[in-house]
Amino acid sequence: MKLAEFDAWMTLEVARVERALEAWVPVDAPAGLGQAMRYGVLDGGKRVRPLLVLAASQAVHGLPGAALRAACAVELIHAYSLIHDDMPCMDNDVLRRGKPAVHVQFGEAQAMLAGDAIQALAFDVLTPNGGDGEPGSDSQAVPPVLQARLCGLLARAAGHSGMAGGQAIDLASIGLPLGENALRDMHHRKTGALLQASVLMGAACGAASPAQWAALADYGDAIGLAFQVVDDILDVTHSSVTLGKTAGKDIDNHKPTYVTVLGLDAARRHANDLRDKAQAALARSELPDAARLSLLADKVVERDN
Amino acid sequence: MKLAEFDAWMTLEVARVERALEAWVPVDAPAGLGQAMRYGVLDGGKRVRPLLVLAASQAVHGLPGAALRAACAVELIHAYSLIHDDMPCMDNDVLRRGKPAVHVQFGEAQAMLAGDAIQALAFDVLTPNGGDGEPGSDSQAVPPVLQARLCGLLARAAGHSGMAGGQAIDLASIGLPLGENALRDMHHRKTGALLQASVLMGAACGAASPAQWAALADYGDAIGLAFQVVDDILDVTHSSVTLGKTAGKDIDNHKPTYVTVLGLDAARRHANDLRDKAQAALARSELPDAARLSLLADKVVERDN
Repeated sequence: MKLAEFDAWMTLEVARVERALEAWVPVDAPAGLGQAMRYGVLDGGKRVRPLLVLAASQAVHGLPGAALRAACAVELIHAYSLIHDDMPCMDNDVLRRGKPAVHVQFGEAQAMLAGDAIQALAFDVLTPNGGDGEPGSDSQAVPPVLQARLCGLLARAAGHSGMAGGQAIDLASIGLPLGENALRDMHHRKTGALLQASVLMGAACGAASPAQWAALADYGDAIGLAFQVVDDILDVTHSSVTLGKTAGKDIDNHKPTYVTVLGLDAARRHANDLRDKAQAALARSELPDAARLSLLADKVVERDN
Repeated sequence: MKLAEFDAWMTLEVARVERALEAWVPVDAPAGLGQAMRYGVLDGGKRVRPLLVLAASQAVHGLPGAALRAACAVELIHAYSLIHDDMPCMDNDVLRRGKPAVHVQFGEAQAMLAGDAIQALAFDVLTPNGGDGEPGSDSQAVPPVLQARLCGLLARAAGHSGMAGGQAIDLASIGLPLGENALRDMHHRKTGALLQASVLMGAACGAASPAQWAALADYGDAIGLAFQVVDDILDVTHSSVTLGKTAGKDIDNHKPTYVTVLGLDAARRHANDLRDKAQAALARSELPDAARLSLLADKVVERDN
């Protein structure tokens, strides 16, 4: 696949995801909750996770309607985690995606509720007609068996053994001299779990053999970690304006990062090693349509915001 | 059904729910997160929602394993909402279920994360083996189609059109002269949605006809509202010690309640009317095994904590 074709694909898919989120994040939720939810979700972010879902689904010829729902659900979980993460009792950050953080714009209580409602919305989006109305009601483009698998993958990636667990380690590690293993464990959960789940949820939308599933899990694992290593690098090498969030904040918050633990050069080498690992896993999968996943791995490592 | 038999049933089922929650809420979540989650979920609460799930399931001869998971999932959503609700940016309450609130015991950041992780755990519990591992993996006692329906019902009850939406109205209504209709809309969402979902999730575990489903929805609707009316009454008539939470706080917080809007006597009459409505809906359902649901409706109205 040519790079121009890949870029066009990305532009198209991001636009599809934006339209779907626009439709699914409510305008009519009561008492300003809808505005806070939309502010926190729409019009921002690189949409890396949705792209991983969609690329993985296309690699296994997955159901497009299901993949779009999975892509949005993963992004909703990511968006809610940023809203809660920015709150005063957590990272106390005021800038996100180039705008004031949700708690700055709408107050802490509304930010907490918006995050809570967005997490619920992720599972709502994954279960079209799944629970409403009478038994046996139609379930649109997503077979109920797939709805259940997607909910399960997402719940486990978001919860205590995934993202929320990683954030607990993150909180507890402030000011501590974390080693590389402990740092990897933290990021495996905090960032890696949801990125890996993105790949697997995409794969679940189609027919992956057990070997292909395992290879895609390895791919997701490697780029999940690579993403965080690069995040740590960008935090020290780039400005707040480029990042759209407060730069240098990990160091200001005395948080261990790949840069503080390994040094900048070794962190860069580590990111490249992880990219190679991801590419090797893709090759092992022998999926014919894995070009987009391969180019996304490059993108994750080479991005500058 | 005799009252003694009903009491024995409740004791037995609550013990089953406690054991299941004990097993499913993690001990091994990292960095103190597991302790905060367990503190917020275990060993407390009346478990009204689980009992509604189990009674509704038994009324339609539902799958017991599925009903137990649904019962715990609903209780997890309820528990997470209490943790977040008690935080300083929301109701700022320090006492819950007779103990210091989670944020008092573990700090605000851990309380927020614990709530977030408990919400994810609810969907995790509903999808046993649903997402992990290879395609087509076994799904224990819960057919995937049912997993999807339960996730959908729960997500919509917990989210912006249900519980979270009701809390947004609650926040916005502080100090405002809410009329009875606006108050009903708030409680329909804030408390009613999850209580109604409890009944419907139980019903989804078995075979309910469309007419029975509609009747159970009406039953759930009526007791959902009755529960809140009684809560408002208890808030002014009972002490913090009896309630296990701070009494009189709605009035202290200048929140509109059924007592402030209707007066105490009219609120009591309203609760009894709603109970009658619930009983009429049950009669309409023509379910042969609805005795437990009927006695639970009495319990909801006659409780003193």
